[in-house]
Amino acid sequence: MSKCNLLTQANTAKLVEDIDTVLFDCDGVLYTGGHPVAGSQEMLQKLRNMGKRIFFITNNSSRSNRQFVAKLNKLGFPAEEAEAVSTSWVAAWYLKEQNFKGKVYLVGNTGMAEELDNAGIKYTGLGPDVAEEESIWDTVDNSHQIFPIDPEVQCVLVGFDQHISFPKLLKAASYLKNEKVLFLATNEDPRLPLKNAPITMPGTGCIVSPVRIASGREPLVLGKPNTPMFDSIHEKYHIDPAKTLMVGDSLKTDILMGNKCGLKSLLVLTGINSLEDAKSVMNSSSPDVQQQAPDFYIEDIGQFGQFL
Amino acid sequence: MSKCNLLTQANTAKLVEDIDTVLFDCDGVLYTGGHPVAGSQEMLQKLRNMGKRIFFITNNSSRSNRQFVAKLNKLGFPAEEAEAVSTSWVAAWYLKEQNFKGKVYLVGNTGMAEELDNAGIKYTGLGPDVAEEESIWDTVDNSHQIFPIDPEVQCVLVGFDQHISFPKLLKAASYLKNEKVLFLATNEDPRLPLKNAPITMPGTGCIVSPVRIASGREPLVLGKPNTPMFDSIHEKYHIDPAKTLMVGDSLKTDILMGNKCGLKSLLVLTGINSLEDAKSVMNSSSPDVQQQAPDFYIEDIGQFGQFL
Repeated sequence: MSKCNLLTQANTAKLVEDIDTVLFDCDGVLYTGGHPVAGSQEMLQKLRNMGKRIFFITNNSSRSNRQFVAKLNKLGFPAEEAEAVSTSWVAAWYLKEQNFKGKVYLVGNTGMAEELDNAGIKYTGLGPDVAEEESIWDTVDNSHQIFPIDPEVQCVLVGFDQHISFPKLLKAASYLKNEKVLFLATNEDPRLPLKNAPITMPGTGCIVSPVRIASGREPLVLGKPNTPMFDSIHEKYHIDPAKTLMVGDSLKTDILMGNKCGLKSLLVLTGINSLEDAKSVMNSSSPDVQQQAPDFYIEDIGQFGQFL
Repeated sequence: MSKCNLLTQANTAKLVEDIDTVLFDCDGVLYTGGHPVAGSQEMLQKLRNMGKRIFFITNNSSRSNRQFVAKLNKLGFPAEEAEAVSTSWVAAWYLKEQNFKGKVYLVGNTGMAEELDNAGIKYTGLGPDVAEEESIWDTVDNSHQIFPIDPEVQCVLVGFDQHISFPKLLKAASYLKNEKVLFLATNEDPRLPLKNAPITMPGTGCIVSPVRIASGREPLVLGKPNTPMFDSIHEKYHIDPAKTLMVGDSLKTDILMGNKCGLKSLLVLTGINSLEDAKSVMNSSSPDVQQQAPDFYIEDIGQFGQFL
């Protein structure tokens, strides 16, 4: 099938007939800057009325599935916890799948901690951990024993952490000196998709990168464009990739994951990428970049709803 | 001249005859883990007695030149401020060279601040700047106005900052939304060269990287392997590259800068890189990697002193 097709009334009917499941990226798709995209709630209701199965897939690791659903509800999107797939939850799911028995050094947040608690996985590191006023270099010169290394730690898990600090980077990198210690990251989004904002909000990629650099190791990244988020629901609910549509605003994460997993893919233009971006990847000479090209695009998700 | 020659009694005599200036990287060369390398102080005194000009070149941006000299003195190395070239100082030198009149948003430390003060350059951002307990995502949802943007800021300068925090990353990336705002970094060393330590100490590269990722911009990096450190003393003291020896423990920073600037280069094996590393870059098929090959290598700087 050709790529980058404009979604119209006509081909929407065919597409909807071919699918029984829709995965929605949320920020930049269903809402932007904390406000629902016009018509997005109605669109969702129509899909539900048609009997389509819905999942909400977010790379954002700052909330547990429970908190993520609460946010969706607050924004006017009815949703259940079983429909939510956050990278916080997927991290705990992955560790359970691996039959992980050790303790996690968590560079993360209360949402990630909640998912680890739900999975019965021990962790340490949550919350503020700030540097002393004394120069850390003087400390190094005087002694290498800067913090007590916990021998139970068998995994460093990095996600969004608004309390990221030098001591946390030091501890994470130090645990990772042991090659047997797992290095997991929820996602690597460079920034939050804020449109027309005067500020830039750093994303989890900005927390993962210094741990990678300090440790010299590569993390297993759970979020999009990698496949564990899809793997988790595929395993749990046996959904059929060929009958599944991935809707997202990012070519590099949403669309690429969709294409990697054999899903149909739809780009909306209310977030990170533009139509020019989509055409540019479609026409790239690199097969890896080409893999980011969506099957369809549409201005916004409200318009998709109108075609339903 | 062939590369990677073992420095011996015989070729040391010739080398020393050919040079009038020696640039020393310090950590991993003159001292390691806060202790002078055996014989390093005597080596330095011999060079001084021969009338060689000495410079101490450090990518470490955590001290002003004054503080850097104090550290050298404390470790038993007589040194003067005019011989010190730290990236903290070079950052201020570079801004003066550019006739910079604005304010700097500093992600750095008191040493960098001291150099900016000495150069009469205004700055903001020094010291702790920690995140509120409230989720930053809720703040974003409610309003984009998270901090007052200072219109005087015309440069984001990033160096070692043990108070690195999410609000600092957010502010740095937000200032960099304006393409006219300069983006400078002192250096990108991934970690401090601690040999046999149970911990990994993140370097300035771990502070620069998240700002780069969040802003989507590339910094001008002042430290080695780039040339501004050499440019600064070349301009100030008119030293002759062909008569200058660069001594370092890192192929990617010290030796590469030396080779880029047309200096002679000597690798010591008491820090980051091994002889195998040096031979591997020498035999690389990539010209860029080959450029990291030193002219000479020696086990440690004390042995160099014995040959003098």
